[in-house]
Amino acid sequence: MRLYTFWRSSAAYRVRIALNLKGLGYSSISKALGKGAHLAADYTVVNPQGLIPALEDDGHVIAQSLAIMEYLDETHPLPPFLPADPLGRATVRSIAQAIACDIHPLNNLRVLNYLRGSLAADDATVTGWYRHWIGVGFAGLEELARRHSRSRRFFYGEAPTLADICLVPQVYNARRFECDLAPYPTLVALSNALEAIPEFAAARPEAQPDAS
Amino acid sequence: MRLYTFWRSSAAYRVRIALNLKGLGYSSISKALGKGAHLAADYTVVNPQGLIPALEDDGHVIAQSLAIMEYLDETHPLPPFLPADPLGRATVRSIAQAIACDIHPLNNLRVLNYLRGSLAADDATVTGWYRHWIGVGFAGLEELARRHSRSRRFFYGEAPTLADICLVPQVYNARRFECDLAPYPTLVALSNALEAIPEFAAARPEAQPDAS
Repeated sequence: MRLYTFWRSSAAYRVRIALNLKGLGYSSISKALGKGAHLAADYTVVNPQGLIPALEDDGHVIAQSLAIMEYLDETHPLPPFLPADPLGRATVRSIAQAIACDIHPLNNLRVLNYLRGSLAADDATVTGWYRHWIGVGFAGLEELARRHSRSRRFFYGEAPTLADICLVPQVYNARRFECDLAPYPTLVALSNALEAIPEFAAARPEAQPDAS
Repeated sequence: MRLYTFWRSSAAYRVRIALNLKGLGYSSISKALGKGAHLAADYTVVNPQGLIPALEDDGHVIAQSLAIMEYLDETHPLPPFLPADPLGRATVRSIAQAIACDIHPLNNLRVLNYLRGSLAADDATVTGWYRHWIGVGFAGLEELARRHSRSRRFFYGEAPTLADICLVPQVYNARRFECDLAPYPTLVALSNALEAIPEFAAARPEAQPDAS
């Protein structure tokens, strides 16, 4: 498999965790987001959305981190990324999507660039924007973690799921932008525990060959 | 089943289509987004994210439209919302997520309100923002539709999938904000064909009891 990735892309970070948990080897093709490499024609022909990550498996390209992870889970079932029962699966997916649909896209680099460019937003405004959406999203997530995380080691159940795989990169991003995480002790405890798992640790941005 | 919905919520619109396609009856609990009903305590106790929609089934609440639709598909398999093969499933999910993760959240009411409020953006700036993200997202989607839609009746395959269910409400929104859709003839043709299907037509915002 080949992963179109970038060390600081948190959606790529998710897929790196997922590949590690499944024990799947892969080669990396780095696309430097800051230089617009993801928008060049040689990549948009691969992924017309021009977003990172994409996974190439046996010549087929799959975009979107959640779709990639469900694909990995269907083609390599162990260890599973979702519980066995439909209600548990729905709960885990809804937590993952609370991050992947309602937090992360709002704070993506292209959005911050649009704020800086077309809206002439200054640094304080952009940082305020970033922290606002982290705060709104994490408030709901903290309550979900309190309800669902019995172990305080995993968001749901007794092993990593899509919820955990999405949580860790989002907490990483929140720390990078120095968001106040004091109101979210459950999320912080979960993320700290998860980050110590070798498959998560090996996927962290600073451990990637294209980190700079 | 009970659906927490709002006639103009395009994420709720998706779930209404999905319930109709599965032939499932449901009662509606309307939460007027413009009045902040989704942020009141009687709803955030149900859905801590404070977002519409949520589905209550047998006393259990599921949030996030994509998670709800996967749940419906797992608990009521016919007609299926996804192809049978993993690659097809991944492709359909990636198209649905291109809309649900990378277009819709950026143009959500709460985001437009933040632009107007905290960033003091005027109407032209907000409309420009809206159309920008539609344009960026639809450009990639149009190419995906050209590649995958053989029938020009469905985005993928020969029956409605999650991709179609996400497309129609997004095109509805784009029209509402008078986005130029001329560059996306395949998306427009698909949406027009889909909107004529009775289960889609019955889900449209103006057909809902809480429409105003």
